[in-house]
Amino acid sequence: MRERIRKRLFDILELNTPGDRLSAAFDYFIITLIILNVVAVALQTVRSIEDVHALLFRRFECFSILVFTAEYLLRLWVCTSAPRYRGAVFGRIRYALSFLGVVDLFAIAPFYIPVILPMDLRFLRVLRLMRVFRMFKLSRYVRSLNVFTAVLKAKTEELVITLFLVLILLMLSSSLMYIIENPVQPAAFSSIPNAMWWAVETLTTVGYGDIYPVTVLGKLLGAVISILGIGLFAIPAGILASGFTEEIRKKRAPVRQCPHCGREIDP
Amino acid sequence: MRERIRKRLFDILELNTPGDRLSAAFDYFIITLIILNVVAVALQTVRSIEDVHALLFRRFECFSILVFTAEYLLRLWVCTSAPRYRGAVFGRIRYALSFLGVVDLFAIAPFYIPVILPMDLRFLRVLRLMRVFRMFKLSRYVRSLNVFTAVLKAKTEELVITLFLVLILLMLSSSLMYIIENPVQPAAFSSIPNAMWWAVETLTTVGYGDIYPVTVLGKLLGAVISILGIGLFAIPAGILASGFTEEIRKKRAPVRQCPHCGREIDP
Amino acid sequence: MRERIRKRLFDILELNTPGDRLSAAFDYFIITLIILNVVAVALQTVRSIEDVHALLFRRFECFSILVFTAEYLLRLWVCTSAPRYRGAVFGRIRYALSFLGVVDLFAIAPFYIPVILPMDLRFLRVLRLMRVFRMFKLSRYVRSLNVFTAVLKAKTEELVITLFLVLILLMLSSSLMYIIENPVQPAAFSSIPNAMWWAVETLTTVGYGDIYPVTVLGKLLGAVISILGIGLFAIPAGILASGFTEEIRKKRAPVRQCPHCGREIDP
Amino acid sequence: MRERIRKRLFDILELNTPGDRLSAAFDYFIITLIILNVVAVALQTVRSIEDVHALLFRRFECFSILVFTAEYLLRLWVCTSAPRYRGAVFGRIRYALSFLGVVDLFAIAPFYIPVILPMDLRFLRVLRLMRVFRMFKLSRYVRSLNVFTAVLKAKTEELVITLFLVLILLMLSSSLMYIIENPVQPAAFSSIPNAMWWAVETLTTVGYGDIYPVTVLGKLLGAVISILGIGLFAIPAGILASGFTEEIRKKRAPVRQCPHCGREIDP
Repeated sequence: MRERIRKRLFDILELNTPGDRLSAAFDYFIITLIILNVVAVALQTVRSIEDVHALLFRRFECFSILVFTAEYLLRLWVCTSAPRYRGAVFGRIRYALSFLGVVDLFAIAPFYIPVILPMDLRFLRVLRLMRVFRMFKLSRYVRSLNVFTAVLKAKTEELVITLFLVLILLMLSSSLMYIIENPVQPAAFSSIPNAMWWAVETLTTVGYGDIYPVTVLGKLLGAVISILGIGLFAIPAGILASGFTEEIRKKRAPVRQCPHCGREIDP
Repeated sequence: MRERIRKRLFDILELNTPGDRLSAAFDYFIITLIILNVVAVALQTVRSIEDVHALLFRRFECFSILVFTAEYLLRLWVCTSAPRYRGAVFGRIRYALSFLGVVDLFAIAPFYIPVILPMDLRFLRVLRLMRVFRMFKLSRYVRSLNVFTAVLKAKTEELVITLFLVLILLMLSSSLMYIIENPVQPAAFSSIPNAMWWAVETLTTVGYGDIYPVTVLGKLLGAVISILGIGLFAIPAGILASGFTEEIRKKRAPVRQCPHCGREIDP
Repeated sequence: MRERIRKRLFDILELNTPGDRLSAAFDYFIITLIILNVVAVALQTVRSIEDVHALLFRRFECFSILVFTAEYLLRLWVCTSAPRYRGAVFGRIRYALSFLGVVDLFAIAPFYIPVILPMDLRFLRVLRLMRVFRMFKLSRYVRSLNVFTAVLKAKTEELVITLFLVLILLMLSSSLMYIIENPVQPAAFSSIPNAMWWAVETLTTVGYGDIYPVTVLGKLLGAVISILGIGLFAIPAGILASGFTEEIRKKRAPVRQCPHCGREIDP
Repeated sequence: MRERIRKRLFDILELNTPGDRLSAAFDYFIITLIILNVVAVALQTVRSIEDVHALLFRRFECFSILVFTAEYLLRLWVCTSAPRYRGAVFGRIRYALSFLGVVDLFAIAPFYIPVILPMDLRFLRVLRLMRVFRMFKLSRYVRSLNVFTAVLKAKTEELVITLFLVLILLMLSSSLMYIIENPVQPAAFSSIPNAMWWAVETLTTVGYGDIYPVTVLGKLLGAVISILGIGLFAIPAGILASGFTEEIRKKRAPVRQCPHCGREIDP
C-alpha cells in the first residue's frame, strides 16, 4: 500500500506522462508559485509596497515555504522509484546532491538558517533576497534548456577563441587608454582596472557616459576600439545564433530522407 | 442594379485585380490619407505648429473622418460579396469583428465617442492621440506582413528558450546588483524593479547613464553582465534574421529536388 | 595624331588595362589626391590647425582644383572613345550627365560658383565644406561597390518589410511614451517628434542619456521597447550580412561542378 | 652530452608532445606567470593596492624577469634544433627576428632599457606599463589563433567593402552634422574631427552622451544615421561570425563528397 502511494506520488512529482491530469496540475501549481515568489521578492524591495502589504508578503512566504518544504521532502521520499536513485539511503543522498536536489534545498534553506543560527540584520537581509534563486527551480520544467547546453558544447572552440581575443583587446585598450587619459583625467582613469570599466562599456557599446576619453589621442583610440569592438563582440553572438539554429534543426530532423527514394540527403 | 453597384464597389475596395485602375487609385488615396493622418497626429503635439495651423489640422481631421467613416460603412455594406462574410446580418457582424473591421472602427471611434459621452479634457487628449492607431489600417495593404508572422511561428521554440534565459539573467543580475549597490546608492538602486531598469539598459546596451554601478564589485558584475548580455540578447536577433531569410527563400522557391532521384521534396 | 593622343589619354584615364603603368600611376595619384582633399576639409575646420596652416590649405586647394579641372575637361574630351558616349556633342552631354560626370563637376563647382555669383559669407562656408563630397570621386575606383548594390537589390523585400515594422514600432512607442511621460517631463517629452528622438535612440541602443523615461510605466514601456528593438533592428543587419556572403560567393563561383563527374552541385 | 641536453630542452620548450609531462608542466607554469604578470601590471596602477604591496610587486617583477630572461636565452640556445632555424648564428638571428622571438625580447626589454639608458620619470612609467604587452607571449600557446587569421583572409573582400562604406558614411555624416550643429553648439561640434567623434559614438551605438545634436534637423539626421549605422556596422559582425563558423567546419570536416559520384570535393 505505502509502496503504491510512493509510486503514484513519483508519477505526479517527477514524471510527465501525457494525460496524467493531476501531474500536470501539480506542475502548473508549482510553476505559478515559483514565479509569484520571484515577483514577491522583487516587489518587497519597493519601500512603498512593502510598507502597505508587509503582512501579505509574510503570509505568502510562509505558505510558499510550507509547499516547497513538503515538495522537497516528498521528492526525497519518492526519488528511489527512479532507477538512478535506487537505494533507501545512498539513493536519497545522491538525489539530494544532484543539481535539482541542491536547488530545491537552496530554495527553502534561507528560511530555516536564521532559526538555527542567530545572525545580524544585514546578513538576514541578503538571505531574504536569496529567495530569488528559487527561480532555478523552474529549470526542472524547461526541458529545452539542454538545447542551450548543447549549443555551448558544440561551439566551445569558437567561443573560447573569441573570448581570448576579447580579453586581449580589453587589456590592451585599457592599458593604452590609461597611459593616454590618466594625466588629463586622473579621477576617471585613475587605474587600469578603472580603464577596463571604460573598455567594457565601450566594447559592449553600453556607454553610460560616466567615463569617456577627452583628449584627441584618447578619442582616436576610443573610436578605433569601439569599431573593432563591434566586430569582435558580435562574433560570439553570431556564433551562438547559428549554433541555436543548427541544434534545433538537428533535434527536429536528425537524419533527412528523400520522401521518394528513401535515401539520406544532407540537411 | 443595386447588386451590381455593390459588386463593383467590392472590387474597388477589397480586391486588388491587376489593371483595375479605380481600385488602385482608391488604395493609393487611402494609404496616403493614413500616412498623412499619422504625420498630423505627431505634428499636432508640437506646440509651435499646432498654434499656427490649428484650423488646418481640424479641417484635415474632419475630412479624414468623413472619408474613413464612408469607407467603413461601404466596406460593411459590400463585405457580403466575399464568401467568408456571406449573410446580410451575421456576415456583416462577423466582418465587423474581424481584425481589419475592428481596426477600421477603432480609427473613427475616437471622433464619435466624445459626441455621445461627455468626458473630461485629459481623457479627450489621450483619445485624440489614439488617432495614431489609424496606422494599423495600413496592415490591409502590406501583404508581406504574413512573412513576419510565419517567421515568428517557425522560430517560436528558439525565441521562447532565449526569452526565458534573458528573463532569468535579468532577474539574477538585478537582484545581485541591488544587493551590491543599494547600500552605496540607495536612491538609484532603491529596489529590485529599479535595478531591473538598470539591467535592461545594460543587457540591451542602451546605457542612458541615469543609473550605473559605482562600487568595484558592482562594476565587475556590470562588466560580466554586459558581456553576457551581448551574447544572449543578440541570439534572438540572429534567429529572426535567419528565419526571415529562410522564409523568403521558401516563398520564392517552394520546390526542391532530391539530388538522387530528382523528385520534389519539401524545402 | 590628335586622335591617337585622345585614344591614349582614354586608356590612361578610363581603362584599367593590367600592365599599363601610366594608367595605374594616374589612378593612384588621383586616389591619393581625393583622400588628401577629404582630410584637408576635415582638418581645416579645426581652428588651431587652420590658423597656422591657412596658406598651405589654400595652396593645396588651388593645386587640387587645377588637377580636378584638368581631369574633368580631359575626361569630357576623351569620353567619346567609349562606345556608350559616341558623338562629339551628344555623347559628351550624356557623359556629363552620367553619375560619375556629375560627381566630377560637383567636385570642382564649389570653387567656381563664388567667382561667378557673389554670395554671402555663410553660404560660402557651407560651399567650402561641400568639398567633402569629392570623396564620391572614389566610387570610380571601388569596383566592388556594385556588390553592395546587388545585395540591396536581392534583399529589397526583406528590408522593406522590416523597415515598415521598424517605423510602426517607432511611431507606436513614441506616441505611448508621449502620453505617459509628457505630464511628468513636459520639457523632454514635449511632443511626439521629440518622443521619436527618444524612440530612435532607444531602438538603436545609442542611448545618449539626454532623454529617458522616469515614471514606472515609462520605464516598463522603455524596457519592452528596447528588448523588442534589439530583435527588430538587428534583423536588417543579419539580412544584409547574409546577403553579402551570398553575393560574394555567387560572384566567385556562379556554377559549381563536381571536379570528378562534372555535374553541377548546389553550392 | 651538451647536444642531448639541448635536444631535451627543445622538446620541453618548443614541442608539445603528448605525454611529455615536464613539457606540459613548463607550459602551464609560463602561462600562469604571464597571466599573473598582466594582472600585476593592472593592479599596480591602483594607488591603494600599490601603496600596501609595493615590495611584493617588485619581488614578483624581479622573479618574472629572471624566468622570462632565462626562458628567452634558452629558447635562443635550443632553437637551432628546429629545421627552420638551423645554423648556429644565422638560425638564431632568424629566430630572434621571428614574431615570437620579438615578443619574448619585448617582454623583458622594458626592464633592462633603463639600466642601460638613463631616462626621465614619465617615460619610465610608460615603460613599466608596457609590461602589459607580455600577454602577447600567450599567442605561442593559443594554436587556434590561426583560425582567426584564416577568417580574416577569407573575408578580406567583404570587410574592405564595408569598411569603405563605413568610412564614407562616417565622413559624410560628420560633415553634415558639423554644418547643422556648429552654429548652435560651437563648443561640442567645434570641428569636423570632433563631429566624427560624435559619428563614431552614434554609428557604433556607444552613445556616451557627451556630444549629441539638439536642433530639429540635427536630430533628424542623427536618427537616420543611427538607423543606417546599425545596418552598416553590423554587416562586418555577421560576416566575421559566418566566416568563423565556416572556417571551423572546414577544419573539422575537410573531406566532402559529391552526391552523384561519391568522390571527394573541396569544401
